[in-house]
Amino acid sequence: MKIVVLKFGGTSVGTIKKIKKVAKIITDHKKNNYKVIVVSSAMSGVTNELIKKSIEISNNFSKSEYDVLVSSGEQIACSLIAGSLCHNGYKARSWLSWQVPIFTVGTHMNSRINQINKNKIIKYLKQGGIPIIAGFQGVNNENRITTIGRGGSDASAIMFAKFFKAEKCIIYTDVEGVYTTDPNKLKKAKKIKIISYEEMLEMASLGAKVMQPVSIQDARLSRIDVEVRSSFIRKPGTLITKKSKIKNSKIVTGISSTQNDSKVSLIGVKDKPGVAAAIFKPLSKNLINVDMVVQNISANGKETDLTFTIKADDLNKTRKIIQENKNINYRKLLFEKGVSKISIIGVGMITTPGVTFRMFQALANRKINIKVISTSEIKISVLIDKKNTIKALVALHKEFKLHHKK
Amino acid sequence: MKIVVLKFGGTSVGTIKKIKKVAKIITDHKKNNYKVIVVSSAMSGVTNELIKKSIEISNNFSKSEYDVLVSSGEQIACSLIAGSLCHNGYKARSWLSWQVPIFTVGTHMNSRINQINKNKIIKYLKQGGIPIIAGFQGVNNENRITTIGRGGSDASAIMFAKFFKAEKCIIYTDVEGVYTTDPNKLKKAKKIKIISYEEMLEMASLGAKVMQPVSIQDARLSRIDVEVRSSFIRKPGTLITKKSKIKNSKIVTGISSTQNDSKVSLIGVKDKPGVAAAIFKPLSKNLINVDMVVQNISANGKETDLTFTIKADDLNKTRKIIQENKNINYRKLLFEKGVSKISIIGVGMITTPGVTFRMFQALANRKINIKVISTSEIKISVLIDKKNTIKALVALHKEFKLHHKK
Repeated sequence: MKIVVLKFGGTSVGTIKKIKKVAKIITDHKKNNYKVIVVSSAMSGVTNELIKKSIEISNNFSKSEYDVLVSSGEQIACSLIAGSLCHNGYKARSWLSWQVPIFTVGTHMNSRINQINKNKIIKYLKQGGIPIIAGFQGVNNENRITTIGRGGSDASAIMFAKFFKAEKCIIYTDVEGVYTTDPNKLKKAKKIKIISYEEMLEMASLGAKVMQPVSIQDARLSRIDVEVRSSFIRKPGTLITKKSKIKNSKIVTGISSTQNDSKVSLIGVKDKPGVAAAIFKPLSKNLINVDMVVQNISANGKETDLTFTIKADDLNKTRKIIQENKNINYRKLLFEKGVSKISIIGVGMITTPGVTFRMFQALANRKINIKVISTSEIKISVLIDKKNTIKALVALHKEFKLHHKK
Repeated sequence: MKIVVLKFGGTSVGTIKKIKKVAKIITDHKKNNYKVIVVSSAMSGVTNELIKKSIEISNNFSKSEYDVLVSSGEQIACSLIAGSLCHNGYKARSWLSWQVPIFTVGTHMNSRINQINKNKIIKYLKQGGIPIIAGFQGVNNENRITTIGRGGSDASAIMFAKFFKAEKCIIYTDVEGVYTTDPNKLKKAKKIKIISYEEMLEMASLGAKVMQPVSIQDARLSRIDVEVRSSFIRKPGTLITKKSKIKNSKIVTGISSTQNDSKVSLIGVKDKPGVAAAIFKPLSKNLINVDMVVQNISANGKETDLTFTIKADDLNKTRKIIQENKNINYRKLLFEKGVSKISIIGVGMITTPGVTFRMFQALANRKINIKVISTSEIKISVLIDKKNTIKALVALHKEFKLHHKK
């Protein structure tokens, strides 16, 4: 059975007009002799409206009832898609999580699909039906509705692709795919045709806009080909797949950048176990998201310097936490607002010497000073002055010939 | 187990503020040592919004998907009520039809509850929980969501009262109860304290505003005491119960009136079997609602006259159907616009002679001409000129001392 899983995001089903368009997309796949499984999100705006209602009742709204409440959003979208397909003469129906069933583990609002009962859906597919699955939800072992904490409907789609051994999972959304860099920042940014899971995961800011990282990771573990494409424009999108499928890979696939970060440096920190933990524990407790962390080797064997970045909004809070926490010892505390992290990502750089040099040289040629450097196997990140962000993107995009890529 | 079923209509849960008020009403019953089962409608407006969406997709929207779509309305309301109770420190949860389960028979959009699985709810009640049941829905033997055609959430509440042998079913709505006549037409109208199922059923226009007739009939068959009361004002409402429980019943309990009817008379109709059917079949087929039907005995054994009323809006359509239908034979066709039907209802009239005379005399005293008369055991209806409606209501309300009733 040649199966494809199609997932539609909230904006793709945001109006009745768009739902009718989605029905057309679905039947086009069906005509290509695929058995089609559809997974839908709630119509855009619906989930937020429902959450707003719950907050009006309580800031500590019952988690199990929250799941009952918000899951109605996907239920509505699914019935409308199925109804639209029926209207066009196709055999289609909505499948709610308890009807499949889709079993989850974990707590309410933060569950994880661990089993999908295939029998009924397989039978339905064999009858020529198009099942429209309510994404983002499942049932737990108490027969209660749960919602999927991380990944949402993307995670549902990937799990269906996995359990049904689908040829491909297509994520329909409001962007055309993944770009070499943010097209809003750099006009010359190009859509990437093919990218590895690992690169996609490292793309953070670029990738997360089109797909939840946790779902990319799920796809990677199950080796599922994922295509991200627009439900509004009929063009191929970006294929996310395993490295070995990518021939002629470029050295650098994409460049991501952050905006409005702050840099925090603790100078003269004791070089002994548990020091980093003592610093990051209170930050984590206060929900401060720490991004880049760099610690150099200790020059004298006793003291070292530790630098990390946070969102600029969290700066005052962070300063207070560090200064007031008696467990954190340092000689000097430095802060810098208005920094930006620029990262080049590409599986090709593992086997290509000199990538780091080329990056640094390209920036130096534009007189852009590098404050901090951090590297992984497929990613090199630098901190620079925020005001140089676009200049750096242009330089690196050109250096690695990204705007020549088709 | 002392059980009470509380049903909240759409306006009672129309806003978050109202839902919080509903939570308070529920816990007041709970404090009175009752085990409380709550049945909720969708928030007012929500169902219509959903139906509108379905129509935008198709005028012939899939019936099974329609049920999935609109049932989400009650799901939302239930989770919000349960969440509000949890916030106040009570043990409460939503129960969707498939979780109970509530089994229905019949077709989609027009199902009927025929079985409620009591085990889980009884267990939950024993644990001190307050179950919030999604009204208006069930599951069929294919494990699909169905909605209840006639009676909606009222029907769900009555069935829960029946299966759980509740002491009472309280229908919370936006009116204070059933009135002796329409308070909008007659200021002196009084709330009825107690009324029999039979009277309530005959009250048509008065009764249907507060409760679906089909649910009143269900309550009558299962001998369930039903109280209709306001969720906004803390006052006793109207108790609907069996005749034998009503002591000191008044001769007339209420007076109902219709507005903007038209009268159709076929003069010189053959007095033989099948004639009435030939007339009403095409009307029924064209969805024309025929109300009062009167046919007198045949004076000469060959011909008779037949009179019926319809909504004024249907007059032209009706005229066309009768005139163009070759199967309907008559000598003369008469139409009259602007008539009104006034009915007095009361179980007491069976045992009280002279009620008919008193009604006619009261109208005659006001020089109100009676066009047509029709009676049942507990109801007398007359057709009069529309312009005399209020005058007639005043006369009859006074004649039968309804405004003296407390």
